[in-house]
Amino acid sequence: MSNKKAVILLSGGLDSATAAATAAAEGYALYCLSFDYGQRHKQELKSAHLLARSLGCVQHIVLSADMRALGGSALTSSSIQVPKDREIHDMESGGVPVTYVPARNTIFLSYALAWAEVVGSSDIFIGVNAIDYSGYPDCRPEFISAFENLADLSTKASVEEGVRFKIHAPLIHMTKAEIIQLGQKLGIDFSITWSCYHPEAGRPCGRCDSCRLRAKGFMEAGVNDPAVKNEIEK
Amino acid sequence: MSNKKAVILLSGGLDSATAAATAAAEGYALYCLSFDYGQRHKQELKSAHLLARSLGCVQHIVLSADMRALGGSALTSSSIQVPKDREIHDMESGGVPVTYVPARNTIFLSYALAWAEVVGSSDIFIGVNAIDYSGYPDCRPEFISAFENLADLSTKASVEEGVRFKIHAPLIHMTKAEIIQLGQKLGIDFSITWSCYHPEAGRPCGRCDSCRLRAKGFMEAGVNDPAVKNEIEK
Repeated sequence: MSNKKAVILLSGGLDSATAAATAAAEGYALYCLSFDYGQRHKQELKSAHLLARSLGCVQHIVLSADMRALGGSALTSSSIQVPKDREIHDMESGGVPVTYVPARNTIFLSYALAWAEVVGSSDIFIGVNAIDYSGYPDCRPEFISAFENLADLSTKASVEEGVRFKIHAPLIHMTKAEIIQLGQKLGIDFSITWSCYHPEAGRPCGRCDSCRLRAKGFMEAGVNDPAVKNEIEK
Repeated sequence: MSNKKAVILLSGGLDSATAAATAAAEGYALYCLSFDYGQRHKQELKSAHLLARSLGCVQHIVLSADMRALGGSALTSSSIQVPKDREIHDMESGGVPVTYVPARNTIFLSYALAWAEVVGSSDIFIGVNAIDYSGYPDCRPEFISAFENLADLSTKASVEEGVRFKIHAPLIHMTKAEIIQLGQKLGIDFSITWSCYHPEAGRPCGRCDSCRLRAKGFMEAGVNDPAVKNEIEK
């Protein structure tokens, strides 16, 4: 097994799956970290389990992160509606969406940093992307750089051993279609990835922003979405 | 009530109590945030409750932060011993102590940032100090500045409304004795603060680094420690 270790933020979606597969292709041993943060879409965590197994992770931890107690997002609060049937154009022009979870990636990366320090890794992979539609402030390159700067100032590993942390965001400049093509090349089984924000009876709604972006991505990549196929064949 | 809101990281110790009292004295309405992070010393959380009440907090949330699952600290892992009976000199020369919890303040500040965004505050108070002995990398001014920089890049509030977050660390350049004198001036009831890392039968051990630094601080401040007095009178 490789001596190089990477902590991977693995949500269960196709972006983080592709980021994880990139780390594996670069020879890292994978330490996958997922969060139960009160998200409505628990299927995401089932996908994270399946992906961790299929990627051959050394260890997979699911942390409970108490974001629901803080509120402020459609993904964690039942009092805010998850938008449906929005056109891509409306998503792009609408600013930061209500599905934004306050400081989510800052919290996730902080835990990843803690775990990286414990396992003796200086590499963290996150599947954010700033192109295509996202609108999330904590998916931008300048956010990633600022976190990297913080990481080097906040840990014992940096102070005592001069460790420099690298936050890898290999998808940050890719479109969804490019991510899907890369994931396909790396052999990801997309049928076990999960994107929907607001499943109905345990199945993707096909109408939330995330479902619509996934569909657009697969279409533009010229790839059939096996998750959709599975649904149809069931 | 004041319109100015501040999120306070309230541990139950005398430093965070003093930081909170500073915010109150500056006219902020207090939103206090504490963490159950698997620390051995649960009495700290009882103190946080008592302090939140005595400080007149608008709201006090105790979040569960799953740090024990990550390991790596004497404060959260039973396999690492909390040091006892160390001389102050040994603490000062020993580098980052085993009671360091990986990325703890980064995680705590990330949650504080999330809550600040939700309640509409741009001010976060944390009771870190870099003088006297601490040895913790995430208690230094450069760490605080780096987090402030990150905060402005990671939130919807900053992107959409131009909010600039301020991480207040009013004690950062104070000695423990100065903190105690300030706390006394601000009317903190030190008898309900908790410092011990490793209580025995629910009482401060008097021998861990934190107990010894507290005792030294009270002695140098010329103030009697009411917590000790309470113990003796019990």
